[in-house]
Amino acid sequence: MENDTRTRTRAVAVAPATGPRRGIGLDEFRPAGGFWERMQRSNARNTLRHCLDWVDRLGWIANFDRVSQGATDGPRPGWPFSDSEIYKLAEALAWEYGRLGEDWVNTVLESLVDRIAAAQDGDGYLNTCFGHAGQRSRYTDLESGHELYCTGHLLQAAVARARTVGPDKLVEVARRAADHVCREFGPAGRAGLCGHPEIELGLAELGRVLDEPRYTEQARLFVERRGHGTLRPIALLDAAYFQDDVPVREAEVWRGHAVRALYLAAGTADVAADTGDTGLLDAVERQWRRTVERRTYLTGGMGSRHQDEGFGEDWELPPDRAYCETCAGIASVMVSWRLYLATGDVRYADLMERTLYNVVAASPAPDGRAFFYANPLHQRTAAADAGPDRVNPRAEGGVRAPWFDVSCCPTNLARTLATWQCYAASVEGDTVTLLQYAAGELRLALDGGDLVLRITTAYPDDGAVRIEVVDAPDREVHLRLRVPHWAHGATLTDGAGARGVAPGWAPARSTLTPGSVLDLHLPVEPRLSRPDPRIDAVRGCVAVERGPLVLCAESLDLPEAWALEDVRLDTARPPRAEGDGAVVRMAAVRPAPPPPDAAGYPPYRSSAPQLRGGSEDSEPAWRDVPLVPYYRWARRGSSAMRVFLPEAQNGARGRG
Amino acid sequence: MENDTRTRTRAVAVAPATGPRRGIGLDEFRPAGGFWERMQRSNARNTLRHCLDWVDRLGWIANFDRVSQGATDGPRPGWPFSDSEIYKLAEALAWEYGRLGEDWVNTVLESLVDRIAAAQDGDGYLNTCFGHAGQRSRYTDLESGHELYCTGHLLQAAVARARTVGPDKLVEVARRAADHVCREFGPAGRAGLCGHPEIELGLAELGRVLDEPRYTEQARLFVERRGHGTLRPIALLDAAYFQDDVPVREAEVWRGHAVRALYLAAGTADVAADTGDTGLLDAVERQWRRTVERRTYLTGGMGSRHQDEGFGEDWELPPDRAYCETCAGIASVMVSWRLYLATGDVRYADLMERTLYNVVAASPAPDGRAFFYANPLHQRTAAADAGPDRVNPRAEGGVRAPWFDVSCCPTNLARTLATWQCYAASVEGDTVTLLQYAAGELRLALDGGDLVLRITTAYPDDGAVRIEVVDAPDREVHLRLRVPHWAHGATLTDGAGARGVAPGWAPARSTLTPGSVLDLHLPVEPRLSRPDPRIDAVRGCVAVERGPLVLCAESLDLPEAWALEDVRLDTARPPRAEGDGAVVRMAAVRPAPPPPDAAGYPPYRSSAPQLRGGSEDSEPAWRDVPLVPYYRWARRGSSAMRVFLPEAQNGARGRG
Repeated sequence: MENDTRTRTRAVAVAPATGPRRGIGLDEFRPAGGFWERMQRSNARNTLRHCLDWVDRLGWIANFDRVSQGATDGPRPGWPFSDSEIYKLAEALAWEYGRLGEDWVNTVLESLVDRIAAAQDGDGYLNTCFGHAGQRSRYTDLESGHELYCTGHLLQAAVARARTVGPDKLVEVARRAADHVCREFGPAGRAGLCGHPEIELGLAELGRVLDEPRYTEQARLFVERRGHGTLRPIALLDAAYFQDDVPVREAEVWRGHAVRALYLAAGTADVAADTGDTGLLDAVERQWRRTVERRTYLTGGMGSRHQDEGFGEDWELPPDRAYCETCAGIASVMVSWRLYLATGDVRYADLMERTLYNVVAASPAPDGRAFFYANPLHQRTAAADAGPDRVNPRAEGGVRAPWFDVSCCPTNLARTLATWQCYAASVEGDTVTLLQYAAGELRLALDGGDLVLRITTAYPDDGAVRIEVVDAPDREVHLRLRVPHWAHGATLTDGAGARGVAPGWAPARSTLTPGSVLDLHLPVEPRLSRPDPRIDAVRGCVAVERGPLVLCAESLDLPEAWALEDVRLDTARPPRAEGDGAVVRMAAVRPAPPPPDAAGYPPYRSSAPQLRGGSEDSEPAWRDVPLVPYYRWARRGSSAMRVFLPEAQNGARGRG
Repeated sequence: MENDTRTRTRAVAVAPATGPRRGIGLDEFRPAGGFWERMQRSNARNTLRHCLDWVDRLGWIANFDRVSQGATDGPRPGWPFSDSEIYKLAEALAWEYGRLGEDWVNTVLESLVDRIAAAQDGDGYLNTCFGHAGQRSRYTDLESGHELYCTGHLLQAAVARARTVGPDKLVEVARRAADHVCREFGPAGRAGLCGHPEIELGLAELGRVLDEPRYTEQARLFVERRGHGTLRPIALLDAAYFQDDVPVREAEVWRGHAVRALYLAAGTADVAADTGDTGLLDAVERQWRRTVERRTYLTGGMGSRHQDEGFGEDWELPPDRAYCETCAGIASVMVSWRLYLATGDVRYADLMERTLYNVVAASPAPDGRAFFYANPLHQRTAAADAGPDRVNPRAEGGVRAPWFDVSCCPTNLARTLATWQCYAASVEGDTVTLLQYAAGELRLALDGGDLVLRITTAYPDDGAVRIEVVDAPDREVHLRLRVPHWAHGATLTDGAGARGVAPGWAPARSTLTPGSVLDLHLPVEPRLSRPDPRIDAVRGCVAVERGPLVLCAESLDLPEAWALEDVRLDTARPPRAEGDGAVVRMAAVRPAPPPPDAAGYPPYRSSAPQLRGGSEDSEPAWRDVPLVPYYRWARRGSSAMRVFLPEAQNGARGRG
């Protein structure tokens, strides 16, 4: 039975070789409308083709042809890591073909794979930037060459193919590339490691799907090699940037480049799971805990610094300069999912939901053809529009852009959205757990027959989730529902009647038989969220959340005369739901001009300036102002925005 | 008379060709002990030699020999702009020789000049990175090649020489270089401009000292050429980074790379002064005003971002990630000095004092052999020490370092400290104005005889300034004293008795005759400073200043069990002076652990966490804690530090 639930060819991105818990395959949950299905549709219809057009136009696919044609002497377009965009796109195509089976997707993928395969060297090495005529030699720039990083993404693409259509040309290419890596970097090879973790993830998962413990062992070697200062610093980027400062097993917190830190953590969790290394798993859990407590934004976003795309220090969480790279959000979901599978702890699923709705979903435009790279929580000035054909050099600016100079996020989103439903539920022996809520049908082949659940909900706009049992095995199976950590006052109505259920796991008490119905009610009324007082950058501020959605104020919604920098939130008046957002009471206040004898250094004064409503009024005017879900910001046009709103002070609302 | 006060060979760095006001020469004020004389001594005894050792050891001087020996084919150490370090050092040596006349200084300088001169091409071009065998061609990378930037510093060094010893070899080298620039970039030449402004400053001042209006005209051309998008963006660095986004005349605020913006503003002020272009001067004044109101730190520091060493947006002033590059502080002083000379507005002298004490003075260690590059207002964790021989790749980290990968600050400090007294006073017709206070003797040759003032003070530790008239012309001259903007309650006692004097200018009412005495009393009691409520990053926080000094809390001074992230300031209890700092009342408070059902996302909660004093006490323990002058932080060893302290809330000191 346990073996059954861990079938290695199930269409999942992550299938640990040990442990009682498995995620569900792409085909086990079919969404029927709703939030994520809309995003998946836009991804399939538009984003995949959009990415393909861009990598083609920029010559990043042709780089493979240059290698296969021996024409590598001339200039090569793209960054050293541009191969990885082709692989992430191939992975997205593979999952998408597995999801809906549309022919054009397969055709495009096979054509890509032909060009990729043709560029593979005889010994399995595959990279378009190193190792050929006119190029630098293989593995001569492990710090920034990204060769193993690219290979890791190739392996992940092959995993998607193997788990959806079975072994094929891409899988063979990946197998040869993985064998090459094991020879080159194995115990008898060079003791190197890649500046950007990713190969660990790819090797571990390919090892699972191909039943090759050598690959897992090589992933383990890479994990253990890290943290000993092997990589040479690059200008301002030190060992911590690469997570090469402290051994993975000893580190207390994630630091340095956020995507690197998180990919490493995900690969480490894979190695820990498959080798039963509880010490290693404990290390990742400990790092997750400290990072989530002290280095993570309300949105789930990670990475406080632009300079190194990195984590800041504890409590360093500026909303305006938040980097919160889309890829770091995706990577955080990858880590939490692995930790959930390994431990079953509800906290990991909670953070996944937060990050999926407020980082991952925030990035793409509704048409799937423009993206946020950075996801700040405060945009001071409305951005100029990015044109549809302009590569955006800046990972910032408050505008979704069609492509970036370093364009890791669009293809990363594509592969993530194509597999969203894999995160929706898990199976552990006779227990099925619903983790994320969306309308659709869950169909699981269990011992004794299929369990089929029809889920009806408008979540997250509405907190009612109805679960009808359409079919069930003729033996007892259990259903468990995740009650999100914010859902105080949730209720569950099942065959045993209605009762309150606390955040955490809510087990259904009735037997699952065809026709039985469960109603979960999650209160998604808007609520205030206050930051830890050690987060200096948002002291005195409050955010409003609604269900899993972080809300924000956009300048577009303010009265015309107001500036976003002047608003104050009346927290004595609770926010009320409206549409998918909320309405709150706000005023705009401005400091009175300094008295004449205070001149000299205007922004700093000896006494707190009196705040007033405008040039005419001495009392601020309070108004109802809508807040919208953060993921939707700047969709109606460019806009200034803030998540954290300064609170009007108690008893002196006008003086806040 | 006006001509006399503007003598072009006076030992000043800035001598506008027009306008009624002049600064004083190096030899006109001799400090006698005190704050700045200590820094000048350390600069002369240690910093000059320290910089010389480093540029020698790194091969940056030998780059000139490689050119003169035709040996430029091999690798060249240093950045493209390393020549400028040699020129800034030469400028510092020239001023220092002008200040005290020590032979070794002149010997070192002459030896440097010989090597510089030998590298000059026949047509006046002088650069060790471009234009010779094996190098890129001249002016093929105006965006980042820094050729004209280096030339500008060469010209400034020559100005120092011309104004201290008169025309010499260095001045001739500079003249030929300037002529080359005028030919190459003049109206008939290429319409290019340098990515890093500086040539404008150098040309304008060399034009003044050599009476060459062509140089001023060329500076004007460079100023007017800027802002039209000529420079190509470099990766993430856009036109605003170079100030090439908006014409100088139209810009409302400084933006982009802070040092570039400020050097450009200084050069623009020079051009505006000498050409009588009031529109251009108005533009710089307007930019100063908006930048000081919205983009400047309490310390006077400028530049909020590490990524581009740049200004952030209005109100974007994070204390922890403040960049506040030492060179930007120096450049701000340069701009304000020019605006003061042009307008006589006291605000410029006020900001200069703030920046000199809290940015410029903060950088060097007392021994003058280690420096801060960035000057943040909040250091969360105490840094590891930088070794004495280690180049610090990071312009951050809370530790003074002997040298940097980009090492612009040490030599910039050296030339600035060597000329500090030039900013101490100004002369305008019959009126002498004291701008900065330090013990020493001011000796000015005025019509009718010398005015000699002996100044006795322990400023800034003490606010008493005694001014004795030692000698005076036998005709009426006027003395004016600057009362800093913070000095409410200042008094002036002179022949006309004692009276209160308001911030701004305080004219002495008595006739200056030998033997007469004036006593200025500036209240330097510690005071609270509150930020504009639009500066989000320090909302709810207060700083303490004392006279011109910004104070800070260092973790070294906290009770052992306290963490700096937990402190709250009791603002109901006024700070009291102690030593050169203050003592304040603080407590450490920590949020109570979340209730069990609040788990899930610990740093954000639905209600404000209760703050308490420790794991045992429910009430915080209030303690007297010293604050020290910001410029002294991390001098006693590495330390966490913060300038802005969260205020304990009114009526609930323990709940803040």
